[in-house]
Amino acid sequence: MLSVYKTLFLDYLENKTTIKEPKNLYEPIQYILSLGGKKLRPILALLATDAFDVDPKKALDVALAIEIFHNFTLIHDDIMDAAPLRRGEITVHEKWNTNIGILSGDAMLILAYQQLESYEPIIFKELTQLFSKTGIEVCEGQQLDIDFETRDDVTIDEYLEMIRLKTAVLVASSLKMGAIIAKVSKEEAQKMYDFGMNLGIAFQLQDDYLDAFGNPKTFGKQVGGDIIENKKTFLYIKALELCNENDKIELETLFSRKLEKNQQKIDSVKLIFVNSNAANQTKSAIKFYTEKAFAILETISIAKDKKQLLRNFGLQLMDRSI
Amino acid sequence: MLSVYKTLFLDYLENKTTIKEPKNLYEPIQYILSLGGKKLRPILALLATDAFDVDPKKALDVALAIEIFHNFTLIHDDIMDAAPLRRGEITVHEKWNTNIGILSGDAMLILAYQQLESYEPIIFKELTQLFSKTGIEVCEGQQLDIDFETRDDVTIDEYLEMIRLKTAVLVASSLKMGAIIAKVSKEEAQKMYDFGMNLGIAFQLQDDYLDAFGNPKTFGKQVGGDIIENKKTFLYIKALELCNENDKIELETLFSRKLEKNQQKIDSVKLIFVNSNAANQTKSAIKFYTEKAFAILETISIAKDKKQLLRNFGLQLMDRSI
Repeated sequence: MLSVYKTLFLDYLENKTTIKEPKNLYEPIQYILSLGGKKLRPILALLATDAFDVDPKKALDVALAIEIFHNFTLIHDDIMDAAPLRRGEITVHEKWNTNIGILSGDAMLILAYQQLESYEPIIFKELTQLFSKTGIEVCEGQQLDIDFETRDDVTIDEYLEMIRLKTAVLVASSLKMGAIIAKVSKEEAQKMYDFGMNLGIAFQLQDDYLDAFGNPKTFGKQVGGDIIENKKTFLYIKALELCNENDKIELETLFSRKLEKNQQKIDSVKLIFVNSNAANQTKSAIKFYTEKAFAILETISIAKDKKQLLRNFGLQLMDRSI
Repeated sequence: MLSVYKTLFLDYLENKTTIKEPKNLYEPIQYILSLGGKKLRPILALLATDAFDVDPKKALDVALAIEIFHNFTLIHDDIMDAAPLRRGEITVHEKWNTNIGILSGDAMLILAYQQLESYEPIIFKELTQLFSKTGIEVCEGQQLDIDFETRDDVTIDEYLEMIRLKTAVLVASSLKMGAIIAKVSKEEAQKMYDFGMNLGIAFQLQDDYLDAFGNPKTFGKQVGGDIIENKKTFLYIKALELCNENDKIELETLFSRKLEKNQQKIDSVKLIFVNSNAANQTKSAIKFYTEKAFAILETISIAKDKKQLLRNFGLQLMDRSI
């Protein structure tokens, strides 16, 4: 059932992406958009419009705007992280160069706005305002993430605020934009946003968890990647908060440099994550935000089967084998 | 008289730029916006609204959007050019770092869109559509400029198309957006756009000319900078088109590498520019586009004194001592 929405979106995406001149500007855009991915955000936009009994096809341009925006952030983030790979393929700045990555990313941000032009002025303005607000928040989240790299006093609350901005607001806005197209009340649209926000936070926390404890066969990224990169995730901050003085010193020492051989480091860090109870508390936090999301979903005035569809999508998202 | 508009804009700009958290995102934005500059584009927006007898204060948010957009392009262009200085001050990516330059530039592009939110939905949509179209064109122009660096068969027509996209469309849109706020007919708004387009092309060609033949005291940039950088400007392409075979070989040889000592190179290149008649033909082209701009201005249905004001602004712009 859910695959119907993905197919609907992918067909639309394929028809919409053509390469114009100058080629060095438009080829990287076509390239990144064709790399696959879960298409989580566009599907949520279609689902939200459909949930209010409006034809999900009406949300296709919003879905496209969100997908183009998300991929713009990926191109620029990959430059900032000097990442060689994205979705298993070579990154834009590596395949072309950094300048082309910067410029085609800039063009994508503008192209994202242009997708909203098919909507009538009042809806257009509402969508564009939410889109801009969300875009600024994603930039703020990315800046906080960069700032945290050189800080050793990041609190759990600060970390949650960072992932709220960097990841969750776009998930929330995808759903709210779908609701705006369905012309529902401000209250119902806001509930969709809040559902998405909590789901987005749960999703990111689970990503942190799976990075350490996931199944290498199903996770899709290198298990232990965050530990190798000394990334201060929820697990790490929580472990520092909970563990004894010896483990704290060991954890901080392990995270103070990068190594050639990493398996021993990964094993030692994971042991502290488990023994300090940080692993369990991370699982509890994921459960907390998932349940909060589903509780909000319950209060939205939509048909039972539509609720079930959104719930299933959420469950499918969270079921990446914890 | 013209300084009134600049002061009006600068006061507004100062009140609008405050530094929020995260500081590493917002400080570079405040920094680049405070570096000065002619404020050519925002002044044109105010002038256009005023020309149709509507309070220019109503155009302040459009003026701000355009100025923020223009400065976003400066930050990203400076990264791409690895430029150490902008308006005589250290560039954002040098003062902070490249990642902060990329990200604060991205945020500025979104902030630019947000300035338009004060307008009612129908005007908002019209402004935002023109803004996006212009933004994409500026990206295309920048990409062409980069592409031209590694090509040796760029024609005069291709060069004119590049500067139209990279520079002139934003000048044209500044005027048209001012006209849109005044709610004039599509035809009058389009004439303002065409006036700006021709003025913008004349302005860029004159910049090319002054880079070689300007007065070092009044030009504001290093005279000969384009020659040192082997930039294929109108002068260079025209000289290759007009000069004899010997000069062609000399010019191409001089432009094939960068030197330690440049004065002799600058003198030799300028001699070819003059002897080939390229210098004169560049002056003719500047005159052609300036006169075309003023001829279009004559056909716009605005009061004589307003026409005079726009004409004076154009003349002042072109009078940077050829």
